[in-house]
Amino acid sequence: MKRIAILGSTGSIGRSTLSVVESYPNLFQVSTLAAGNNAELVFKQAVRWKPRVLSMAKEQDAATLRAKLRSAGLSEIEVVDGAPGTVRVATHPEVDFVVSAIVGVSGLEATYEAVRAGKTVGLANKECLVVAGELITAEARKQGKPLLPIDSEHNAVHQCLRGGRMDEVERIWLTASGGPFLKTPKSEFALITVQQALNHPTWKMGKRITIDSATLMNKGFEVIEACRLFHVPPDRVQVVVHPQSTIHSLVEFVDGSILAQISVTDMRLPILYALTYPDRIPSELRFSISDLRHLDFCPPDMAKFPCLALAYEAAEVGGAKTIALNAADEIAVAAFLEEQIGFEDIPRIIEETMAATPAGHLESIQKVLALDTEARLLASEIVRQKRQKRSPIRAIS
Amino acid sequence: MKRIAILGSTGSIGRSTLSVVESYPNLFQVSTLAAGNNAELVFKQAVRWKPRVLSMAKEQDAATLRAKLRSAGLSEIEVVDGAPGTVRVATHPEVDFVVSAIVGVSGLEATYEAVRAGKTVGLANKECLVVAGELITAEARKQGKPLLPIDSEHNAVHQCLRGGRMDEVERIWLTASGGPFLKTPKSEFALITVQQALNHPTWKMGKRITIDSATLMNKGFEVIEACRLFHVPPDRVQVVVHPQSTIHSLVEFVDGSILAQISVTDMRLPILYALTYPDRIPSELRFSISDLRHLDFCPPDMAKFPCLALAYEAAEVGGAKTIALNAADEIAVAAFLEEQIGFEDIPRIIEETMAATPAGHLESIQKVLALDTEARLLASEIVRQKRQKRSPIRAIS
Repeated sequence: MKRIAILGSTGSIGRSTLSVVESYPNLFQVSTLAAGNNAELVFKQAVRWKPRVLSMAKEQDAATLRAKLRSAGLSEIEVVDGAPGTVRVATHPEVDFVVSAIVGVSGLEATYEAVRAGKTVGLANKECLVVAGELITAEARKQGKPLLPIDSEHNAVHQCLRGGRMDEVERIWLTASGGPFLKTPKSEFALITVQQALNHPTWKMGKRITIDSATLMNKGFEVIEACRLFHVPPDRVQVVVHPQSTIHSLVEFVDGSILAQISVTDMRLPILYALTYPDRIPSELRFSISDLRHLDFCPPDMAKFPCLALAYEAAEVGGAKTIALNAADEIAVAAFLEEQIGFEDIPRIIEETMAATPAGHLESIQKVLALDTEARLLASEIVRQKRQKRSPIRAIS
Repeated sequence: MKRIAILGSTGSIGRSTLSVVESYPNLFQVSTLAAGNNAELVFKQAVRWKPRVLSMAKEQDAATLRAKLRSAGLSEIEVVDGAPGTVRVATHPEVDFVVSAIVGVSGLEATYEAVRAGKTVGLANKECLVVAGELITAEARKQGKPLLPIDSEHNAVHQCLRGGRMDEVERIWLTASGGPFLKTPKSEFALITVQQALNHPTWKMGKRITIDSATLMNKGFEVIEACRLFHVPPDRVQVVVHPQSTIHSLVEFVDGSILAQISVTDMRLPILYALTYPDRIPSELRFSISDLRHLDFCPPDMAKFPCLALAYEAAEVGGAKTIALNAADEIAVAAFLEEQIGFEDIPRIIEETMAATPAGHLESIQKVLALDTEARLLASEIVRQKRQKRSPIRAIS
């Protein structure tokens, strides 16, 4: 029986994880949960799963939940809150496996502490590897515990890597759907509207990740994640556009053999893989090879998608540069969604923020968080300047 | 330094193996060679590789070669001949690794003896697994030595299987190019000429294997090989038509994940993989993922290609039935090539031969060879009857 902590239990990955746990009651048990602000769903999850500890983002929500659980005769569930609450959920002595699925840097500290506490961690939080990959992977190596990727690309790579040793790997190939502007000419990029950018051809996702998919920054983040997770330099991680997203990623070995992973597009599959690794157990998540018809591939256009090139640059330098990349992207995407800047300003803001950020080594999560705050302020200031420059032109047109 | 015996050194796989050995002089060394009748090439190979022992099919060719080598100052090379000569080459005490690449049942005994002598064997001979798979794999298990497949499909499967344990495998998927009649309507099959059938869209191969590709019998043999090599029942081995032959085969695991292997179509790659297994070493045999454009897939049409269904039937029963399948196919294909029978008669002759062959267990290679001879006589008799029935009709038309 594997005892599981879920950081981000009310989010998409959190709910998928609970669905997996539900399917295998003899294998997995929910031990602790950390949620955000969805009080109603948290209460339902508490009643259904009866975790030892449950954490909520806000103290007030926690207090309300505590009272509700007492009324429901579930006062044995310990309700905690805030960042220390999440850390408590992640490091609880009863927990064997931590699913890290809190979006943004707020999941960082708890994930790091889980690794430090010797837990096996399944990573669905992008920021953990993008901004603090060096720290987290070093700690996992020290603890001798695997970091298991819970996202389709890196999970695919993890599976393909079983075909050889790490020193036999020539290159990792991440597949990219290409986003909604794969076939849009560069000349039309200046006119891209928020609505067009939010219209992703294959997936319904949160707004930021949808824009990140449209700029290919999401793939850039994945390049950095792959570098950190598998300890390879950026020039050994390549992107290939594959609109059907049937092949989730590939690994090329030194002898010239390439292994590729194929499966249904359902997050329960990488979650199940991570939870059962190094074993595999039967699931209903079948991909029908007899339904395979056509697969298309093409190289990514770095000129059209400068965010991808910026991510490679950040991956190369690491440290403060990846923090600047991530923070500036978050600020720029928010500004684009509020129609304060144009689509093509997103990479410009990131580039300027990165340029103005001195390279810096990361010695602690606190340092990461401090650099993240600095980079956000810097990016916001650059956005403000862009808006001032932009306004008169708008007025003229 | 791995010391290698090549059974079939003048054939295509034999020459590719020597090319691999040539590329890695510090890793591999030719220890012994067994060849057929190509005296000129054998002499060149003897001079170049200076094997300890060299075997030729015929006693007379061996004598000539012995004299030639003596004149060339190479009398230290021991020249032997016939079936015992091949066995001597395969079981030489200095040999670590045996490449089994003699076409037909004549490679059977030496391969079996190599396995019995505790050698690691790379299998390029189809018949070893099709007609004597049960015997050879049982002996390899007993010896605790791997049998490494040297053909693109099973080599691909071997690589993909590294992604999990054998009890975690749901299904093996062999890809098939589909042959020249993939899109020909069944109604036109009766009119297929020898010339059309020999016109394979992707590969230049020997005549029998080209016809076997056109009838999909070649894929049927591969289904049987996969069953024997990986110890799975026939219903766990499926065929998917993939005209580009970019994905060489796939393995589907119980959790729903599928691994696929991709590489250039160059036999040196599976040879290198087998010779270096469980390691991988760098090669120049690169597949360019950036050149990937389109991949197509479709299910095979069992009604159009009854040979495939017959192979499944033989795989299920095993023993004498697979021997009948192989022997009858060889006889039927030869008759088709001589225009004695039509294209659609090939599966009919195989079906009748199989039906007339009682199921029989294989306790020794001698028994295999005896059953093979019987099946050939039976198939030849069925061909003779078909020709007699056919002639009057021809005369009328």
